[in-house]
Amino acid sequence: MTGERKVTITAIAREAGVSVPTVSRVVNGRSDVAPETRAKVEELLRQYGYRRRTHAPGDRAALLDLVFNDLDSPWAVEIIRGVEEVAHASGVGTVVSAIHDRAGAARQWMTNLRARASDGVILVTSALEPVLHKELHRLGVPIVVVDPAGTLALDAPTVGATNWAGGLAATEHLLQLGHRRIGFIAGPPRLLCSRARLDGYRAALESAGVAIDESLMVPGDFYHETGFTGCRRLMELDDPPTAVFASSDQMAMGAIEALRQRGLRVPQDVSIVGFDDLPEMQWSAPPLTTVRQPLAEMGKVAARTVLRQARGEELDSPRLELATELVVRASSAPPPERR
Amino acid sequence: MTGERKVTITAIAREAGVSVPTVSRVVNGRSDVAPETRAKVEELLRQYGYRRRTHAPGDRAALLDLVFNDLDSPWAVEIIRGVEEVAHASGVGTVVSAIHDRAGAARQWMTNLRARASDGVILVTSALEPVLHKELHRLGVPIVVVDPAGTLALDAPTVGATNWAGGLAATEHLLQLGHRRIGFIAGPPRLLCSRARLDGYRAALESAGVAIDESLMVPGDFYHETGFTGCRRLMELDDPPTAVFASSDQMAMGAIEALRQRGLRVPQDVSIVGFDDLPEMQWSAPPLTTVRQPLAEMGKVAARTVLRQARGEELDSPRLELATELVVRASSAPPPERR
Repeated sequence: MTGERKVTITAIAREAGVSVPTVSRVVNGRSDVAPETRAKVEELLRQYGYRRRTHAPGDRAALLDLVFNDLDSPWAVEIIRGVEEVAHASGVGTVVSAIHDRAGAARQWMTNLRARASDGVILVTSALEPVLHKELHRLGVPIVVVDPAGTLALDAPTVGATNWAGGLAATEHLLQLGHRRIGFIAGPPRLLCSRARLDGYRAALESAGVAIDESLMVPGDFYHETGFTGCRRLMELDDPPTAVFASSDQMAMGAIEALRQRGLRVPQDVSIVGFDDLPEMQWSAPPLTTVRQPLAEMGKVAARTVLRQARGEELDSPRLELATELVVRASSAPPPERR
Repeated sequence: MTGERKVTITAIAREAGVSVPTVSRVVNGRSDVAPETRAKVEELLRQYGYRRRTHAPGDRAALLDLVFNDLDSPWAVEIIRGVEEVAHASGVGTVVSAIHDRAGAARQWMTNLRARASDGVILVTSALEPVLHKELHRLGVPIVVVDPAGTLALDAPTVGATNWAGGLAATEHLLQLGHRRIGFIAGPPRLLCSRARLDGYRAALESAGVAIDESLMVPGDFYHETGFTGCRRLMELDDPPTAVFASSDQMAMGAIEALRQRGLRVPQDVSIVGFDDLPEMQWSAPPLTTVRQPLAEMGKVAARTVLRQARGEELDSPRLELATELVVRASSAPPPERR
């Protein structure tokens, strides 16, 4: 059955005189295909009875594949929760997998995916090898990428969050409290979301007429350890910042620990703002002011999108960005000299 | 197909002259069935070709259902990680669902489960209604319960952790540091694991010849808020404790926040020990001393167990308890008067 499907999409491409990726785009409901090409491909898809399988009621229980690079990320469960809620309500099972940045595990997953004839794939990873991308497209399974990191590498609809607006909101909040020396701990420069958050920080400072001080920006990788070392570095400056915007919650936790070890209190001595709003952050000591990424909502939108693709509906937009939101808790306050 | 299966197990029970749960026990590899009954049922299972489906290679892709009450628990992702690792390696898909303590969602899940003809079920919930328990048994799908809470309500193999030994180890650690007044924040009394942790605490105090002081034990429900209020109550005592064993990590976080609000430092003024070792706890400020529950390992054992049942193998034991382990970090230290 899987074999037939594979032959079909290749055969359709050949018969339509177009490339396999183009057929894939039509299958995936993408709008970037010329109307006459789309019409020709759709006619052939109908002739070959392609995708009839996912339409026939009671034919087989529907499944969605939700693929992570690793399941150790604290936000994985939020995305699972969103996807599961939408899928469950539609009678669709959510198959969760992790491919661990390893080609072997990804290939094993691909084999499993084919065997279970999944109706759609939600990828929360950018680690899939190009050869596997091609394979997925050839299978003609609808794909949606949940992309908190903003990698944009795949030829598939993506669901992300407004990272730039979030960076802006976090920095504006600290400026409004009266801070003028605001440190920034960055994410990995190869990820678009890191750059967007940094640009939001810069834009807020510029709008407020505060000069950009390069010494206040330190590198990080979104993990705890670089928040710790980054904040320590900032506090060792001759004129240390009175507030630090750590561009992930895990780095914010590391920053708070670095301050604790120096005997500095949050927020009395230094304010901290994070980014993500992981569920645990409301319990941290002090509860963290942070920028909420709507991860569960992103999962829901991805599930709805892939189910729409599986039904052959056309999508409005290949890229959706859901709004981030500043959540003010107890880790931010006016700077010491202001109180 | 599902309908046939359902008829078959009932028919086998009738023909063998035994109850449906007894056939279910044989299917589930339980050892508490008389040898002659088991032989008779197994012979009938063979005759009816029952379970042949899961044996035939290439017949259909194998699936495991992993069911949570809610996906908002921070330890859910740990269990998913363990189950997925074992299932993935065997070419089995892990379908994750949440039933939200609601009968409607549980019934929808049951309908979906039947439609996808899952090969096994791992339950991480005690919220399934008795009528659905019966339904599951009648379907003859192998079941394993991952039971961090120790509820023991289901007639199925369970995988848990050594809660009593964990409570003992946490308390012994504080005693060895020199603490004599050690507070305890309890979990919900209806859960066996709460009682086991409390009994471990009492046993350690008794072994050390420290009198049990009922005023040092306060109620809680494992969530953040009761850790906060419980710790505040302990600190308002005329002779407050120098250390608090909060029997969940979330309550430990609440306790640390209560101390912070009173201007007390952890561990300089008061030591805190938690229970669970959620991944975030290594990043808390200060990093938390806690008792590790091997949640991912519990997920792995559950997956291996349910896959063995699906292959018709007999199990060694209907109840497995994996070892907990004390993880000493920075939230525990000798009491102030000792330094």
